Amino acid sequence: MSTDTKKQIYKPRPVTGFPEWLPEVRLVEQQWFDHIRRVFESYGFCSIETPSVEELDVLRAKGEVDKEIYVIERLHKDENDKSDARLALHFDQTVPLARYVAQNFNELVFPFKRYQMQRVWRGERPQAGRFREFYQCDIDVIGIDTLPLHFDAEMPAIMWEVMNGLPGMENEKIQMRISNRKILIGYLESIGINDKSLITIVTNAIDKIEKNGLEAFYTNMHQVFEETAFDTQEILIHLRDFGTLAARPYNNADELRDALERSRHINTSHPTIKTGIEELCAVLDSLADLPDGAVVADLAMVRGLDYYTGTVYETVFVDDPGYGSICSGGRYDDLAGSYINKNLPGVGISVGFSRLFARMVDQKKIDVSRKSPAHILLVMTAEERRGEIAKTAQILRARGFNVEMYHAAKKIPDQLKYASRKGIPFVWFAEEDGTHQVKNMSSGEQTKTDPQSWVLPEGYARHEAA
Amino acid sequence: MSTDTKKQIYKPRPVTGFPEWLPEVRLVEQQWFDHIRRVFESYGFCSIETPSVEELDVLRAKGEVDKEIYVIERLHKDENDKSDARLALHFDQTVPLARYVAQNFNELVFPFKRYQMQRVWRGERPQAGRFREFYQCDIDVIGIDTLPLHFDAEMPAIMWEVMNGLPGMENEKIQMRISNRKILIGYLESIGINDKSLITIVTNAIDKIEKNGLEAFYTNMHQVFEETAFDTQEILIHLRDFGTLAARPYNNADELRDALERSRHINTSHPTIKTGIEELCAVLDSLADLPDGAVVADLAMVRGLDYYTGTVYETVFVDDPGYGSICSGGRYDDLAGSYINKNLPGVGISVGFSRLFARMVDQKKIDVSRKSPAHILLVMTAEERRGEIAKTAQILRARGFNVEMYHAAKKIPDQLKYASRKGIPFVWFAEEDGTHQVKNMSSGEQTKTDPQSWVLPEGYARHEAA
Repeated sequence: MSTDTKKQIYKPRPVTGFPEWLPEVRLVEQQWFDHIRRVFESYGFCSIETPSVEELDVLRAKGEVDKEIYVIERLHKDENDKSDARLALHFDQTVPLARYVAQNFNELVFPFKRYQMQRVWRGERPQAGRFREFYQCDIDVIGIDTLPLHFDAEMPAIMWEVMNGLPGMENEKIQMRISNRKILIGYLESIGINDKSLITIVTNAIDKIEKNGLEAFYTNMHQVFEETAFDTQEILIHLRDFGTLAARPYNNADELRDALERSRHINTSHPTIKTGIEELCAVLDSLADLPDGAVVADLAMVRGLDYYTGTVYETVFVDDPGYGSICSGGRYDDLAGSYINKNLPGVGISVGFSRLFARMVDQKKIDVSRKSPAHILLVMTAEERRGEIAKTAQILRARGFNVEMYHAAKKIPDQLKYASRKGIPFVWFAEEDGTHQVKNMSSGEQTKTDPQSWVLPEGYARHEAA
Repeated sequence: MSTDTKKQIYKPRPVTGFPEWLPEVRLVEQQWFDHIRRVFESYGFCSIETPSVEELDVLRAKGEVDKEIYVIERLHKDENDKSDARLALHFDQTVPLARYVAQNFNELVFPFKRYQMQRVWRGERPQAGRFREFYQCDIDVIGIDTLPLHFDAEMPAIMWEVMNGLPGMENEKIQMRISNRKILIGYLESIGINDKSLITIVTNAIDKIEKNGLEAFYTNMHQVFEETAFDTQEILIHLRDFGTLAARPYNNADELRDALERSRHINTSHPTIKTGIEELCAVLDSLADLPDGAVVADLAMVRGLDYYTGTVYETVFVDDPGYGSICSGGRYDDLAGSYINKNLPGVGISVGFSRLFARMVDQKKIDVSRKSPAHILLVMTAEERRGEIAKTAQILRARGFNVEMYHAAKKIPDQLKYASRKGIPFVWFAEEDGTHQVKNMSSGEQTKTDPQSWVLPEGYARHEAA
């Protein structure tokens, strides 16, 4: 194929919204995935993966989706061939989970505890600068008809362990916020707000209290209720009481109970509110062992109104709450009602992996010193010794080390420079007389050693996959 | 959203060609990925991932692609918005690698050794029963201008270790076949076959010798060359000689050299043939440590004629060669010439992961006894002891074990049954008096133990992720 004519070059541009990493960044991304998987599995969650696509009708079985969907189509499609159902890339892992559980219902053991770490796609406009392809890491527990409340406490405990163990996140201060949807819904019910569109308006306004402040909330509510048949003054008295409650976090169940008791206009014996408080307090009590400030109750939290029915979670950077939630979820009554005639309550929580990882990369908080998983570069002193040196490589590999043999019998300084450029921490010399030396590239120290007994010095273990 | 009206159910069908596994199968799939990754990294290959999509023009930069491509499109696309380049799902990992290397050329250290384990997509007709989404596991080494030949031997050695270590493949007899494209190309050149379409016809016929036999090959060649200006008798004498050579495998370099010396009509001093033989013999010599029959030279092998320029590989089941190659690749002169004005030779090899895995699943050769990664089910004797029992769980988790706490204080037999249905191998009793007992579910044996010192009995380690 090689000709003398000048090659035709098509210079590729990066595709906006589809993240891609250099090897040294990818290596840390793998450590993140490994860590998350290790924590999820340590709690007994099994892995599943679903195809990247679902039938478009499956994605829309619950009604029109507000997320932007990518459909896929064969480039050389036969226009007359209608046998193929229309396929689209999934936009989250919850719809595929629901479909999976419905389809494999008889094969699964319940409560079904699964984790899923896959790419999802959103057909966002490229100029918005958002990711159009990204990883999510989800855990969910699904029961049949009922699901014990202690799972609602297990979710944030697992995610706390996940997020605080991610390499590079050591100095980030994060906080998980928990609420229970029943308190807000029961409260609105108790003051006579049953109209769906009004509920949406009020909850959206409550959601913005953190951003815009209480006064803006009251002004807004005043305007809204003046247009209704409600007694605006009376409603505002109630809403002020709830606003005051919702404007601050509660560190534990006792603080929350005290505040609720002191609030004069919230009817804590209303059955829905009462259940919500009991559930939320039970979850907070179960999380009492986490560090101070790890978890707070936040009654202003509004997430996925149509979807969640009890406990809800979100997670923020304490110093940058405006960045939004990096880990969210909650309890739902009915996972797969669109696909199967069973009542399958569940609770789940999800890390927006790629968004969080990209932030840490942007802020240069991850260690990008290693362009290779190799622990050891084996020096090649002469091409005819390659077979012999390879034997040392195999001994070290069998002992669990990652070993690259240098590719040519170049000068030693060239080989050291290569190790240094790739960030390989140790350079090994298998001498002709059968002795071995290993050089620690960061300290410069070179010592006698043996391939059968050498161990990685402390501090290197966290780079390991295995 | 809950109403009294009957739920509308959309019963989902499996989407043909997009594999999906139950948790117990997925668990083994993860073991496969872990093993493959471990081997790749032990040789110093770094991981990269590329987006699922490329610009359609990037995929087609080398010319029209014969693979079926899936394009993606936003469902609610603004028909007037032409700002978006047309995007398509990648059909292999080689084109993305080429684009990646071109784009990040200045950031990479060469020789660039990378592995990639991602899904690829082919827009096959659904009725063909082929996978339309599947995993491939690739390794490639890319040099600048030159790349030492010993990498050509490293590739099959790595893949031998990969394939023979996959759980469930223990009893499969596989064989890697190696050839060097230069021998065939040089040979055709030496007998005057320079015409591209004629080369394609002859090599395709050689490729079918294994399937159709030598006589069919000669008959076919007779017909072909009668239509040309060649002296059919003379060409046939040569082709018979090559056919005889190519119809059998060679276990090592000596056998191959002997056979070539004995063949009267092959000009082994022709420069291209000579280089091909030297390279192939050097690769075979480097692989001499592999078990007998692991690797053979097979001169009839024809793979990706336009692409590979030297060493080529394929891998078959010895008892079922007709199934086709499960691991293939070769040496190429120019990886990324369509995207960058550099000469980047490389050598790579790829396992068709999903096709191989699905075969082992279909043939019931993988162990599907575990529906959960949990090693231990912790028995829940009373709901009020949950907090205390959770402490034992945390001790065991911190020691690297995967632990599920039973979700309710049900009768012990129910809890044992649950462990058994999920395939959790050990059931743990954290007694009220502070003593511990562990029951081995396969032997039935129950013994006193301690969470600080208990270890997994031998034979369970291979289930581990870490």
